[in-house]
Amino acid sequence: MIMISDNLAVFIAAVLVVVVVTAAFVVYCCVKQKRRATSTCLDIIFTHLCKMSTPDAEPLMRRGNDFGRRTRTWSGGSIDPYEDPVSGLERVSSRSQLNRLSRRRREDEERLRHRTEPPVVRREALSSMYESLNYEIAENELYKAEEKKPMHHLDLWRQSRNRWIVCFFIGVFTAFVAASIDILLHYSKTIKFDIILRGLMDRCDEQARLTGAACLWEVEAAWIVYDCVLVGIAAFLVIWVSPIAGGSGIPQIKCYLNGVRIPNVVGLKTLVAKAVGVACAVGGGLAAGKEGPMIHSGGVVAAGVSQGKCALFGCDMGLFKEFRNDRERRDFVSAGAAAGVAAAFGAPIGGTLFSLEEGASFWNQNLTWRMFFSAMISSFTVNWILSWFNGKSGWLSWTGLANFGVFEKRQEYNVWEVPFFLMIGILGGISGALFNYLNTKLAEFRKKYVSNPWQRLFEALLVAAVSAFLAFATLYIVDDCKPIGISPNHTQVTQLWCKKNEYSAVADLFFSMPEESVKNLLHSPINSYRTVTLIVFAIEYFVLTLWTFGLAVPGGIFIPALLTGAAWGRLIGIAIEEIFPNATGISPGKYALAGAAAQLGGIVRMTISLTAIIIEATKDITFGLPIMLVLMIAKWVGDMFNEGIYDTLIDLAEVPVLGWHPPKMSRNILAEKVMRSDVIAVEPRIRVNRLLQILSTTKHHGFPVVDRIEESTTNRELPDYGHVKGIILREQIMKLLRNRVFTPDMDSPDTLARQGSIILADFLEENHDDMDLKSLPLTYEDEQCWVDLTPVMHPHPLRVTLNASLPFVYRIFRGLGLRYLLVVNDENKLRGIITRKDVARFKERRHNNEYVIEELYIAEDQNPA
Amino acid sequence: MIMISDNLAVFIAAVLVVVVVTAAFVVYCCVKQKRRATSTCLDIIFTHLCKMSTPDAEPLMRRGNDFGRRTRTWSGGSIDPYEDPVSGLERVSSRSQLNRLSRRRREDEERLRHRTEPPVVRREALSSMYESLNYEIAENELYKAEEKKPMHHLDLWRQSRNRWIVCFFIGVFTAFVAASIDILLHYSKTIKFDIILRGLMDRCDEQARLTGAACLWEVEAAWIVYDCVLVGIAAFLVIWVSPIAGGSGIPQIKCYLNGVRIPNVVGLKTLVAKAVGVACAVGGGLAAGKEGPMIHSGGVVAAGVSQGKCALFGCDMGLFKEFRNDRERRDFVSAGAAAGVAAAFGAPIGGTLFSLEEGASFWNQNLTWRMFFSAMISSFTVNWILSWFNGKSGWLSWTGLANFGVFEKRQEYNVWEVPFFLMIGILGGISGALFNYLNTKLAEFRKKYVSNPWQRLFEALLVAAVSAFLAFATLYIVDDCKPIGISPNHTQVTQLWCKKNEYSAVADLFFSMPEESVKNLLHSPINSYRTVTLIVFAIEYFVLTLWTFGLAVPGGIFIPALLTGAAWGRLIGIAIEEIFPNATGISPGKYALAGAAAQLGGIVRMTISLTAIIIEATKDITFGLPIMLVLMIAKWVGDMFNEGIYDTLIDLAEVPVLGWHPPKMSRNILAEKVMRSDVIAVEPRIRVNRLLQILSTTKHHGFPVVDRIEESTTNRELPDYGHVKGIILREQIMKLLRNRVFTPDMDSPDTLARQGSIILADFLEENHDDMDLKSLPLTYEDEQCWVDLTPVMHPHPLRVTLNASLPFVYRIFRGLGLRYLLVVNDENKLRGIITRKDVARFKERRHNNEYVIEELYIAEDQNPA
Repeated sequence: MIMISDNLAVFIAAVLVVVVVTAAFVVYCCVKQKRRATSTCLDIIFTHLCKMSTPDAEPLMRRGNDFGRRTRTWSGGSIDPYEDPVSGLERVSSRSQLNRLSRRRREDEERLRHRTEPPVVRREALSSMYESLNYEIAENELYKAEEKKPMHHLDLWRQSRNRWIVCFFIGVFTAFVAASIDILLHYSKTIKFDIILRGLMDRCDEQARLTGAACLWEVEAAWIVYDCVLVGIAAFLVIWVSPIAGGSGIPQIKCYLNGVRIPNVVGLKTLVAKAVGVACAVGGGLAAGKEGPMIHSGGVVAAGVSQGKCALFGCDMGLFKEFRNDRERRDFVSAGAAAGVAAAFGAPIGGTLFSLEEGASFWNQNLTWRMFFSAMISSFTVNWILSWFNGKSGWLSWTGLANFGVFEKRQEYNVWEVPFFLMIGILGGISGALFNYLNTKLAEFRKKYVSNPWQRLFEALLVAAVSAFLAFATLYIVDDCKPIGISPNHTQVTQLWCKKNEYSAVADLFFSMPEESVKNLLHSPINSYRTVTLIVFAIEYFVLTLWTFGLAVPGGIFIPALLTGAAWGRLIGIAIEEIFPNATGISPGKYALAGAAAQLGGIVRMTISLTAIIIEATKDITFGLPIMLVLMIAKWVGDMFNEGIYDTLIDLAEVPVLGWHPPKMSRNILAEKVMRSDVIAVEPRIRVNRLLQILSTTKHHGFPVVDRIEESTTNRELPDYGHVKGIILREQIMKLLRNRVFTPDMDSPDTLARQGSIILADFLEENHDDMDLKSLPLTYEDEQCWVDLTPVMHPHPLRVTLNASLPFVYRIFRGLGLRYLLVVNDENKLRGIITRKDVARFKERRHNNEYVIEELYIAEDQNPA
Repeated sequence: MIMISDNLAVFIAAVLVVVVVTAAFVVYCCVKQKRRATSTCLDIIFTHLCKMSTPDAEPLMRRGNDFGRRTRTWSGGSIDPYEDPVSGLERVSSRSQLNRLSRRRREDEERLRHRTEPPVVRREALSSMYESLNYEIAENELYKAEEKKPMHHLDLWRQSRNRWIVCFFIGVFTAFVAASIDILLHYSKTIKFDIILRGLMDRCDEQARLTGAACLWEVEAAWIVYDCVLVGIAAFLVIWVSPIAGGSGIPQIKCYLNGVRIPNVVGLKTLVAKAVGVACAVGGGLAAGKEGPMIHSGGVVAAGVSQGKCALFGCDMGLFKEFRNDRERRDFVSAGAAAGVAAAFGAPIGGTLFSLEEGASFWNQNLTWRMFFSAMISSFTVNWILSWFNGKSGWLSWTGLANFGVFEKRQEYNVWEVPFFLMIGILGGISGALFNYLNTKLAEFRKKYVSNPWQRLFEALLVAAVSAFLAFATLYIVDDCKPIGISPNHTQVTQLWCKKNEYSAVADLFFSMPEESVKNLLHSPINSYRTVTLIVFAIEYFVLTLWTFGLAVPGGIFIPALLTGAAWGRLIGIAIEEIFPNATGISPGKYALAGAAAQLGGIVRMTISLTAIIIEATKDITFGLPIMLVLMIAKWVGDMFNEGIYDTLIDLAEVPVLGWHPPKMSRNILAEKVMRSDVIAVEPRIRVNRLLQILSTTKHHGFPVVDRIEESTTNRELPDYGHVKGIILREQIMKLLRNRVFTPDMDSPDTLARQGSIILADFLEENHDDMDLKSLPLTYEDEQCWVDLTPVMHPHPLRVTLNASLPFVYRIFRGLGLRYLLVVNDENKLRGIITRKDVARFKERRHNNEYVIEELYIAEDQNPA
């Protein structure tokens, strides 16, 4: 503590500045909202900043209070008064005149104008922008014919082999990404510590010795600038390059595995932004982990490898064409997520369980085994690379990025320690729930007030600066020097302002890589840290984590939560040691581990997969039971207050995910109420121009095929649809039109001949970019031709009757991964369609200790233009 | 080796006697089959033995060549010529005269008499005796009305709480069973070693010193008698008390989790027979493990605890009535299986994964978490009890029955060792496939020739005697004495005929508990065993395991396979050490572990769950990757030759299980072909006597409800069924009749009033014993009454059209756990029904490197009476 007296004032002043700036920022944002009319000086500056850029598309987190921009649709048995006017089309039967459409639309618009907003001002919604994955196989004639080919069994064999090959490369490439991040961070750390810290400090000491003038502000400034530059890069990547790369990416992967297509979630740009960004964010000293982003990265790698092409550069290697569809891609992404976890924590079993927990709604058991293979290869490769990098080539002992080290002395625990673990679990649950509550509030605050890119960049830089300041400030205020050698694990001799042969325990916590800090907290002997150090660190890190999570940088919650938990867990361990001085076998490391698990479990509320991950990351099964206990209690306690952070984020983003079980108290909600009755059906033979009109005036993705469509006999607004014959997807219709599979005559034999020209491969390879109707090369003559949909439609889609209950429908959707479920009457005549979104609209909520079903509306996002 | 010269001759003679007896037994059995006409002296003895008892029901393994006793039915679109004549009933419409039935049946029987057997003599079949579980919820009016009750949310809460309570007790009781077995075995071992071996040997030594006469035969005889008595008890329990308790029980649990009701698989009698039997079998020195049976025991405990009553003693505690149905029971049994694995191996994650791997076809995600809780509690309780029993009360360090100890020195492995692990995996796959092949042959042999209870008892005793003989013989022939202290782990000083301060390494392997032998093989230093000891032991134990598995005793394959594998794995480790004397870090224990995993993986072919189990049992995550690698390779190599042992057993038992994925090359098999068209439907209002007739003349369990039934207009043999309205199960009809829910008039309002008297609880509690029609208290007047099925039937069963493909149907069955799927035409008129068995009939086989679909027939078992 050589220079404290000199610089203490400076640092306290600096801290005050930071606090004031932050407070001002918050107050400003609030004021701006409250009194939008009165513009202050600051307002002008910020408004200027705001106008410098238009907000980029932000897929998983909608910004701004954009409820005014949406129309609202409630689907239901009756015609919904708020529905999108274009869907009036379905009321036009195929035999009616299509030019009635525009008139009706005008009428609808007229009606809409006189509509008032519903009384509920803030009501939760599901966004309509998320489409579901096509997990169901369209078992059309092409698909069935393929099996009759003489060499089909060879194809099967080749596909099976290719799946394994792809899984192998998923593992290898995910591991490379993980190892690259780790190596980048290693060099970043070297720069920070060896060049900035030690170099500048030596110069400072020299200078102080010579001139007597303290120059600590130089070190401090250099440090902060370095951090801010790195965090700035990370924030730039997220804000301007790939918004989806922000945050941990786990919610996105959860949604994807649940069966929701999140735009751009798997793309090379996302991967680069994510990997570079996370290295910068963590290297920049933010309280963020690199493990969560690894799961997302693994998913992206998987999607990339399995497609054998790259959309960004437009290159197509022509490989694995058979895997270019949603079904295969989702399977590979789940393998990639498993590989990501395996690379991050050296936890192949935990990774497999993670994918299983999130994706087991509809599951292919063979996939488990391939997923596990990917995870294993990934873990092995990371191990190999890091062992080589750490100079122990060939000895496979670095099993993941987060390597928590091993308990040197094999430890046990006693039955009487179980209540303490329970207590830690309860604490973790409460602390986690508090974290989620505050972070959700913060996210809502950000959604409203920090929506502008420059504001978001500023916030990221502010957090980086505050993090660095806090570390330095704590270092000054808390005096905790220990002789070198007391902690067997510390890797960086952080002498700083301690005496020679001493190191600062505070610096050990704040300036090491977070993974190393966790390791130190778990394995250092009991006297390694002062109590006050741990208290201050736990509180500060909790706050920093809270602020950091949700920033516009890539970064996970795992390691920061573990670190916070390990700090207060260790405190509890020390307290127990103080209270029961005669008990044997107490070691603070054990309680630090429990605390870490409790804090993380309280925040993310994952169950068995998290247990497996922590056990595998600590490489020790002995504490398996306490860890499970703690996680279980933390989840229970936390669930009393709110949902896990990922689920909360998903709810905030209004993604239509289907949870583990159907909503309670929904047995009496029937398909009749769930379905959308404004379904647009087509007849098996249909004119090209009719198809074009349907495609251009609706956004539907699936069109049931019925044997005939008649004007309603009962004077209802909908036509009478006949018996269900199948279902056809928008992509399939586009493929038919693009390949010109149509004939001038309605019943020409030429139809079938021409259909020989399309093969299954065309339909398996989905191409969501090719959906532009204008690009179709169709002449006026073409538009008068007839298309036969029969060979291409899925001829036996699943259907339920009008009296099917919501839980029944829910189980079908979850169990089979459906996108559409047709609703028919007792005579198999089409009456409506249920999409995944319609099912996800019904949520159970607890209200006065009773479950009530809340019906969300589907918000149609309209472009501001 | 003091007394070898004296007794060597005696022992070799004894071994020869055993070999001769065994050979004679085999030859006799074969001869008996070949020349049934010529009766020999032995024949007379055995025939006499055979007649002393009639064979007991043997649910999972059919004995005897009973193909002659079965009629064969192929279902299919057209009327099957071999169908059971009683099902001619369905051709009688409800409006036709029912007395036409008997005439038609007589005609059918006449036709049957002129039928010849199909040309294929031996064709695989599915047994019709296995019914499916009712996993689907019958969402009838009662079920829906329940939710409208004002206190329903309290019921929900109570159910949820009760589920957790039940899971807690499942864990505790499973652990008690496990610990009891372990403690029983501990005392059995004490008796064997301290009293028989050491006591008699001391007396022998004394006697030899005094009189010079060797008396080793006394020791040997006492040992063998002791073993035979224990094994005799085990065999008695299996043969006469509870046949289902034989073997490991894992195939039965697999089938149950897959959705097949195995008779008596969960019952108290089974549990007692299993627990006592396995203690006796393992205590009797058989090459059998106690871990597999623990999984079965856990399942039984779960079924017992969750039902809150006991069928054996007729006691009913009135608890948990809401869980008395197939759906809840299956969920709890999966938790019990997980708890069983957790208790056996201290592997809660492995246990959960086991249940997930076997049962994930239709899955309730909340269940995963409860299952994990059960497993954790079970592991914890075993830990506690065994720690207490082993005198280290409170210190939780015994985490399972099979505790493989920890690697003292933390070990690592090098990249260049990976090829060796691969090699071990290949070896394990080949060895496992060989094991499965031979064991299947043995099972077929037993099925044919060792079907009589006394023969089976004799075989069990023979194996017990041979096992003991072999151990003694090896001890004599192989001279492997080591100074005490060389192996850090050996727990029983087995000096035997070694010098003082020495112990016999052979005795260490043969006479310890198998779990301890595994531990010794994994952790002893390199010079603990002579090469020849390991070679002889591996071969002998392989043969013993082969012979033991499938005997009429409870006993698993896990530990014997691990032990065999550990022996040859250790050999390979020693060989590598010899070949590369300069390499560092080689330890035979590492290779022993890999060998153990490879051998077990090659036999059972489990994937991720086995990996987790082995990692958790060794309590060390370091070798996770090699273990996975080895298991993966072993499975791949093994799968080239045959299926895993459990699947083979299930196939042999002809159980209709649905595998992981639909059979390949089956896209063009349509529902039309899969379904049974001889479905019996009923109308919503039906007379009691008609119901009675249907119930008494068919064995069907589900009856579709259609709006009308008319005589065929197209002159087909089947009536024309109307639109599907629902499905009703046999149990539900019985409940209606038993509760007298019928009225004299067809449309009496009294119907609904009376139906108030039945509540959902009546229908939720399934009672399969109450199916006797004769016990119904119905008068002639009652039989003329009308029943309204509408409030009780499931009103919206899932249905597919005639053109649905087999993979589609398969996925629905797997994904939703269905028992029945209705097949309708385009107008929703009933055309047939698909049951689980109909789907399971289609198996993929490889034939000349191509996949072909084999269609099994469903063998109707007729009672010999």
